[in-house]
Amino acid sequence: MISIREVAHEAGVSVTTVSYVLNNKGNISEETRQKVLEVVERLGYVPRIGAQSLRDNRARIIGYPWNFGPSPGEVNAILEEFLHYTMFYAEQRGRHLLLVRAPSEEGLAVYDDLIKSQRVDGVILSHTMQDDFRMHHLHKLKFPFVAFGQSNSSLDKETCWVDVDGMSGIRLATQHLIEQGHRRIGLIRQPTDSVSGNARYRGYVAALADYGVPYNPELVVIAEHRVSDGYLAARSLIDLPVRPTGIVAMSDTIALGAIQALRETGHWVALTGFDDIPLGEFLTPSLTSVRQPIQEVAALLVDMLIRQIDDESFVPQQHLLLPSLVIRASSLGDFGQ
Amino acid sequence: MISIREVAHEAGVSVTTVSYVLNNKGNISEETRQKVLEVVERLGYVPRIGAQSLRDNRARIIGYPWNFGPSPGEVNAILEEFLHYTMFYAEQRGRHLLLVRAPSEEGLAVYDDLIKSQRVDGVILSHTMQDDFRMHHLHKLKFPFVAFGQSNSSLDKETCWVDVDGMSGIRLATQHLIEQGHRRIGLIRQPTDSVSGNARYRGYVAALADYGVPYNPELVVIAEHRVSDGYLAARSLIDLPVRPTGIVAMSDTIALGAIQALRETGHWVALTGFDDIPLGEFLTPSLTSVRQPIQEVAALLVDMLIRQIDDESFVPQQHLLLPSLVIRASSLGDFGQ
Repeated sequence: MISIREVAHEAGVSVTTVSYVLNNKGNISEETRQKVLEVVERLGYVPRIGAQSLRDNRARIIGYPWNFGPSPGEVNAILEEFLHYTMFYAEQRGRHLLLVRAPSEEGLAVYDDLIKSQRVDGVILSHTMQDDFRMHHLHKLKFPFVAFGQSNSSLDKETCWVDVDGMSGIRLATQHLIEQGHRRIGLIRQPTDSVSGNARYRGYVAALADYGVPYNPELVVIAEHRVSDGYLAARSLIDLPVRPTGIVAMSDTIALGAIQALRETGHWVALTGFDDIPLGEFLTPSLTSVRQPIQEVAALLVDMLIRQIDDESFVPQQHLLLPSLVIRASSLGDFGQ
Repeated sequence: MISIREVAHEAGVSVTTVSYVLNNKGNISEETRQKVLEVVERLGYVPRIGAQSLRDNRARIIGYPWNFGPSPGEVNAILEEFLHYTMFYAEQRGRHLLLVRAPSEEGLAVYDDLIKSQRVDGVILSHTMQDDFRMHHLHKLKFPFVAFGQSNSSLDKETCWVDVDGMSGIRLATQHLIEQGHRRIGLIRQPTDSVSGNARYRGYVAALADYGVPYNPELVVIAEHRVSDGYLAARSLIDLPVRPTGIVAMSDTIALGAIQALRETGHWVALTGFDDIPLGEFLTPSLTSVRQPIQEVAALLVDMLIRQIDDESFVPQQHLLLPSLVIRASSLGDFGQ
């Protein structure tokens, strides 16, 4: 196991400096801070949390309120990766991660209980919604939190969040199909009350405009985030008098349904998804998809939360990250365009 | 939100009795205990944990040491379901679930730190191995733990575990193929040093014997738990001079590779997997698979752990649960047998 001495030696600083950085104490320059954190990550140093938490009365626990059950017809693409990296970065900074069930019908009781019991020093929210009631509540109480996603309200300027730019992701996917020669490109989009869905929709529109491809409303269909809905939406596109030669799906779950429709009808078209689920590369055809930088999301969330917890003067930060396109067989090849 | 009064009323007992059951106090009959727990589950009652933990100096936190990263080529089938239900039952009993990263190369340091810091009252282990060093260590220290899986050593008689009978699962799958008329059935099995793999292998052998189908060693091939290995193993079965008409795969991950091989060669055979991954029903063909009763596993693990924590005289229990077979298109139809 790596010791704090080895970290200090490798970073060219004192043990005290490493300890200060990990505990957000002392007057450390941003440059030194970044250097130490880089070495901590590279060497895989993990502080022993028990020893630290005896020294102060902090819980040294970060809460992750969470309420996904196993949902038939829906694939939770990034849970494992998100939990793994959140835990990884939290432990590097001497904190553990507490899972807390937070059914939305219980409202704020879960959060109030967590705060009152001093069981956690701060929480990570995900699956944010418009005007997120949890964000409003925690902000009012000045309880440290960070969010994966925005609330699309004035609150977003005053709170810490990390989001991935869905518009850029779908723009990338649509551009990729246009560059493969496709001009008649279908879009399976989320219902119009979805904030993230609307951003992704704008990415599709923007990519068409980038290349001067006319927008055709009959090529845009709506589906809920279920495989069966993806199937029906893709069927409706395939059944058009002049069918598209490419389809941009709003998620891999939707794309899975689309693959069923393509296989069943035998009308193959170029296809892209969003999320890059672990199974995507093993589907036939392997699935081209938009990938979110989950490791970076987790690192930023944990860092901002711990700085908030340890430093009352910390100024909230917001990070909008860009996704990437993972190109595989489903979007390549000659699909009759 | 459901109150403890409603639970008491519905169960026909006093509020004190409900509280005693949830906190393992008082002298409650097993019948009353089961009745109360049944009502708690049915109504979805969740005790407010903060209020309770102020009353004693217990952490009221259960640790789940965990170290799966995102693993390319491998699908963690049951993580979401397992975490969800473990958290669900833990919170019903007034405990939270702490995720702890436990890389195996760090040995026991993670566990010693957790115990020393009094951060958790007990831990849940999973992915047990032969003569599991974690089980031996925690048992020696008398620190409460339960295991999902066995250590296949003398320890298994003295510790609490829940396991799912893999032999029965593969026996079910093989019997199902035989009942569909198949006689030439390939097996893609784990390497012979895998304890669970050997149990599953015995299920295959037993099913053949059940129906008087001769065992043919050329139909049994070995693969690591990766899609690419499943592909290669299935190819080697398809390339036999007389190919099998059915294949039993040791996991859905392996079955995914097999589907690739079947699609590529155009030689379809009946196929079964193991794990029932969330995507299985959306593959083409949808995948017949052996399903583990994860909800029941989680309920038993949490119950046994809390009883151990609260009652030093609790006698360790062991539960071997039976899996079920979920039959879908991949094992049905005429595959040329």
